[in-house]
Amino acid sequence: MAITVVGSVAFDTVETPAGRRERCLAGAATYFSLAASYFTQVRVIAVVGEDFGPEQQAVFDAHKIDIRGIERAPGKSFFWQGSYLENLNEAKTLKTDLNVFAGFEPKIPEAYRDSEFLFLANIDPVLQRRVREATPNAKLVAGDTMNYWIKDHKPALLEVLKGLDILLINDTETRMIAGNSNLVQAARAVLELGPRMLVVKHGEYGATAFFGKSPKNVGATTFRAPALPLEEIIDPTGAGDSFAGGFFGYLASQPELTPGAFRRAMFYGSVMGSFAVERFGTDRLQELSRKEIDERFNIFRELTHLD
Amino acid sequence: MAITVVGSVAFDTVETPAGRRERCLAGAATYFSLAASYFTQVRVIAVVGEDFGPEQQAVFDAHKIDIRGIERAPGKSFFWQGSYLENLNEAKTLKTDLNVFAGFEPKIPEAYRDSEFLFLANIDPVLQRRVREATPNAKLVAGDTMNYWIKDHKPALLEVLKGLDILLINDTETRMIAGNSNLVQAARAVLELGPRMLVVKHGEYGATAFFGKSPKNVGATTFRAPALPLEEIIDPTGAGDSFAGGFFGYLASQPELTPGAFRRAMFYGSVMGSFAVERFGTDRLQELSRKEIDERFNIFRELTHLD
Repeated sequence: MAITVVGSVAFDTVETPAGRRERCLAGAATYFSLAASYFTQVRVIAVVGEDFGPEQQAVFDAHKIDIRGIERAPGKSFFWQGSYLENLNEAKTLKTDLNVFAGFEPKIPEAYRDSEFLFLANIDPVLQRRVREATPNAKLVAGDTMNYWIKDHKPALLEVLKGLDILLINDTETRMIAGNSNLVQAARAVLELGPRMLVVKHGEYGATAFFGKSPKNVGATTFRAPALPLEEIIDPTGAGDSFAGGFFGYLASQPELTPGAFRRAMFYGSVMGSFAVERFGTDRLQELSRKEIDERFNIFRELTHLD
Repeated sequence: MAITVVGSVAFDTVETPAGRRERCLAGAATYFSLAASYFTQVRVIAVVGEDFGPEQQAVFDAHKIDIRGIERAPGKSFFWQGSYLENLNEAKTLKTDLNVFAGFEPKIPEAYRDSEFLFLANIDPVLQRRVREATPNAKLVAGDTMNYWIKDHKPALLEVLKGLDILLINDTETRMIAGNSNLVQAARAVLELGPRMLVVKHGEYGATAFFGKSPKNVGATTFRAPALPLEEIIDPTGAGDSFAGGFFGYLASQPELTPGAFRRAMFYGSVMGSFAVERFGTDRLQELSRKEIDERFNIFRELTHLD
């Protein structure tokens, strides 16, 4: 099944303990679509500026990602500059230039209308909602958000949550939305707001899926996927978007959404996140093979399974 | 196989968001031995004061824990007072009275000499080493330590590490010993100091075992056990010692120390840690059954296994 994703396609300049990279192809929709492209057909809705040229387009083409929904606008693409020199787990934002993204009005190409999977990457919840409403055929809708929208745009965000099947966020965001410091209680509160499934990403400790209502302190409706202990992290940017791409891409490739498919999707999410951080920007996600992905999936199984 | 454990038997006064408890039976050796007692025979070496009476003794007796190695000294037992009101993940120490523990000279009863498993709970590394040397028959030796010893008693601690098969510590302690903020690199450095296996406890995110040398960024010689997402944590004290007791107790109960036995031991460690925090002090560990323990083991499997 095809996935439509709406989100940012951007250029990033990042500094990490491993070095510095200028203006690499990035953005949530880019990380997501590259990660998902190893599993299924991906269609992107975004806006870019005149700096998005044949070199960038070739990256999407090489992965058969449909970019007819990427609008070209006069001006420059969204630009972000960040540093991980002080803390590899949290970026320090040095610069954010919205550029053409400031006036972004998502338009959904006719050719995307039959997408049964929709991913609303981290953008203004007003835009997320508009895309959701313009995609009535979507059978499974997942999305992401961030502290900025939770803090200052909560009413719009709550409207988006009502229309989501799956929300993928991190520990801090879960606690912020719920206003509760206990993760399990916070997760339950978030599940009351709309999503049927909540995936909480724990960075280097993996991710936990909470499904609907679960009995007290019992793991039966909870699933935990590990992260791979990594000796070297080159650039943590995009790990969460890559997790989402692996997770949702795998789900979209399945003939049936069984409980086992959701579990394997959690593992594939972790797998794609672990690859993303091995090189700057999307470099590692650009050069993978499905064989490498499945080999790492087996390492994850080996890492956590008793037998 | 019997386990000998040396460590503190103490009284704790704790405050948590769930309430306050005065002078409950506690101490690393108490948590450890209760947790391990569900799997094997445990023998304790410690010192207590005159406040250790029939009520406390009955707790050990009920679990057939051998306390002939618990010396009674004039004065009061070790006392600790802490608060988790600000942060459930880290205790704020309000008071530490070493009392009889200040002059502790561990003596090993003749009846303990055939113990093939030895656990050196978190105490002065000079004492850990003395017990290690007085237990030449031990075939498998594991131990714990804490930031205080790492910071101010490192030479003595390094001597202990040389004699350990397994070290169980947390993320921060691992990074402190190695002086390296990357957990995998730090773990590798700790494994160079003596232990053949390092278990790093991540609190609410579970624990990772590192076995000897492992190829770069590959999980094959690494194993990760989850923690149970808990909706209610009554008292986090002793979770790490209970993990150690479940882990080492299970190992001591096995006819052969296969790779599978170590993996299951990691899960049993997490299981016992998850029980410990459900009540104040050692209350929950005192009342368990092996059936309950194995049921929770299965919940942990369900929580993380793909099939």
